[in-house]
Amino acid sequence: MQAKRYGRQSYALPSKPRVCSFASTAGKKEGEGPLQNSFDVVVQDDTLGEKSWEKAETRMLSDTVSLCLRKAGLREEDVDLFLGGDLLNQIVSAGFAARGLQIPFLGLYGACSTMAESLLLGSLLLDGGFAKRVVCATSSHFSTAERQYRFPLELGNQRPPSAQWTVTGAGATLLTCEPTHPIAVEAVTVGKVIDLKQNDENNMGAAMAPAAADTLLAHLRETGRRLEQYDRIVTGDLGRVGYRLFRELCKQEGLELGDRYTDCGCDIFAPEQGLQAGGSGCGCSAVTLNGHLFQQMLAGNIRRLLFMATGALLSPTTTLQGESIPSIAHAVSLEVVPCC
Amino acid sequence: MQAKRYGRQSYALPSKPRVCSFASTAGKKEGEGPLQNSFDVVVQDDTLGEKSWEKAETRMLSDTVSLCLRKAGLREEDVDLFLGGDLLNQIVSAGFAARGLQIPFLGLYGACSTMAESLLLGSLLLDGGFAKRVVCATSSHFSTAERQYRFPLELGNQRPPSAQWTVTGAGATLLTCEPTHPIAVEAVTVGKVIDLKQNDENNMGAAMAPAAADTLLAHLRETGRRLEQYDRIVTGDLGRVGYRLFRELCKQEGLELGDRYTDCGCDIFAPEQGLQAGGSGCGCSAVTLNGHLFQQMLAGNIRRLLFMATGALLSPTTTLQGESIPSIAHAVSLEVVPCC
Repeated sequence: MQAKRYGRQSYALPSKPRVCSFASTAGKKEGEGPLQNSFDVVVQDDTLGEKSWEKAETRMLSDTVSLCLRKAGLREEDVDLFLGGDLLNQIVSAGFAARGLQIPFLGLYGACSTMAESLLLGSLLLDGGFAKRVVCATSSHFSTAERQYRFPLELGNQRPPSAQWTVTGAGATLLTCEPTHPIAVEAVTVGKVIDLKQNDENNMGAAMAPAAADTLLAHLRETGRRLEQYDRIVTGDLGRVGYRLFRELCKQEGLELGDRYTDCGCDIFAPEQGLQAGGSGCGCSAVTLNGHLFQQMLAGNIRRLLFMATGALLSPTTTLQGESIPSIAHAVSLEVVPCC
Repeated sequence: MQAKRYGRQSYALPSKPRVCSFASTAGKKEGEGPLQNSFDVVVQDDTLGEKSWEKAETRMLSDTVSLCLRKAGLREEDVDLFLGGDLLNQIVSAGFAARGLQIPFLGLYGACSTMAESLLLGSLLLDGGFAKRVVCATSSHFSTAERQYRFPLELGNQRPPSAQWTVTGAGATLLTCEPTHPIAVEAVTVGKVIDLKQNDENNMGAAMAPAAADTLLAHLRETGRRLEQYDRIVTGDLGRVGYRLFRELCKQEGLELGDRYTDCGCDIFAPEQGLQAGGSGCGCSAVTLNGHLFQQMLAGNIRRLLFMATGALLSPTTTLQGESIPSIAHAVSLEVVPCC
């Protein structure tokens, strides 16, 4: 067996688990943005006909998982494990979605890093020879997140320019141990919690950028790789403020990211949409990966992708208690490989 | 390599990851209960000298992890991974503890099933040949849980007899891939989310009992084992109401649990302590396992233990929106083996 370990944070996946299927659902604003043609479904009514936004988010997540399985010609009972989480208190979107799906469930919480955390764990479990098919999924919803983290929508509260707009969307990836598909997970790096004492909850990008830089540096150091080995390096949802800080932090470490670096939070909305510093939320990187990015890989435009979703591990209570914002980023290295 | 799979939910762990060290910290009430002599630390002041209960819970979790490593003669940098979570919004106790510990972190959410979820994932990652040492830990705190889920403590609210008392406590287990210690994880069963439409949030035991029964049945069915192969079967925190329901549900399926079955929620407090139906919270099963139960295994009184922590995946918002309580239970099979 090949070595499975590059260093303390980074693991190799010799069996190269494959992306068997992927699906994304996005909201109206996301459906009007630059990635509009990459989503499987765009919902015009953010209640999805449900009685509350929370029920709508659960429905969106659950429907996206089902769509992902349908695209692979599979049913819920064909999948061994559902790994997922979301931003809501007690991750109820994922918990309630798992109730309906009846797939054995392991709940995760990594804030907006959840898409990467679920892919990371899912591919380790496949490579370890345990599960055969794992579905990794997450969601966020603008209105549930505002209700929980900020102000009632009815207040029409103003937002500072550094604030980010929570993406309404859900993304799901089905991973399989069979080498039947071309996109493979070949290495992962688990993040550490980093906190440089940024305490403005309206500037999550600034809080998360150091965590992303720490994980990228750990990944390159432990795997012995150079930046140039990746066609694309993508962060989850640093937004326009965090994007600049991340570039600067990398530059200080001698890493010139150049145009191989993009951020899902910057890409999902156009500046003209007037949504401050860009997108955020678990759904932001989830819908970008499970649409645009995987499509670019299948089209041959990206051969090696380092996907690093970022999460701010605060709560409204910790902010009120004067705490700064601990953050984390997990990295998943994906590549296009021959399939049989 | 031996087969790693019994069925859809159950995995074998041929390498038998070992419990290298364990530690528990409990609050004052827990320290006055039947398990008082089994805890490493009993805190008399539930603020631990911190300015808020939330900071106290983080401190308790972090200190317990550090103690667990110290008992093994190890430092934070010797550990590859910290798997943990808690009950607070955005699992801030675990996230903030991970900030201080600087061990690569994967955040989990399984409500009160977190101790089992973290052991399950940790032992899979060890058996898969990835990590070498993983620390699994969780906590709960009566006062942070009341603030978040129920009423201000100052209200002196009355509690119905079916209500459970959130345990103030933290437990940590250090798992290692080296066969140097006698307690081993040899199989695990991932739970499904089960909801029989119980919607009284003051009766979590009734909501969780069917999930525990479902997981026990799946475990026995998939592994082909009989109840008698376990010296002890322990549920996490069903409390006195859920304990009776679980027995009844098992009986309906032809399983007579007899006196090999106990529940951490029933065992942690004496009925004379007047704490309604017993203990609950992530800390309930965590301190019972990482004290009393492991001590019983080391003393030769339990050779094979099936540890099934149970979680109620609700939030105050879902309850207000009229939802019932989805629940989950994960099973971890532990046994005493020869060590070298």
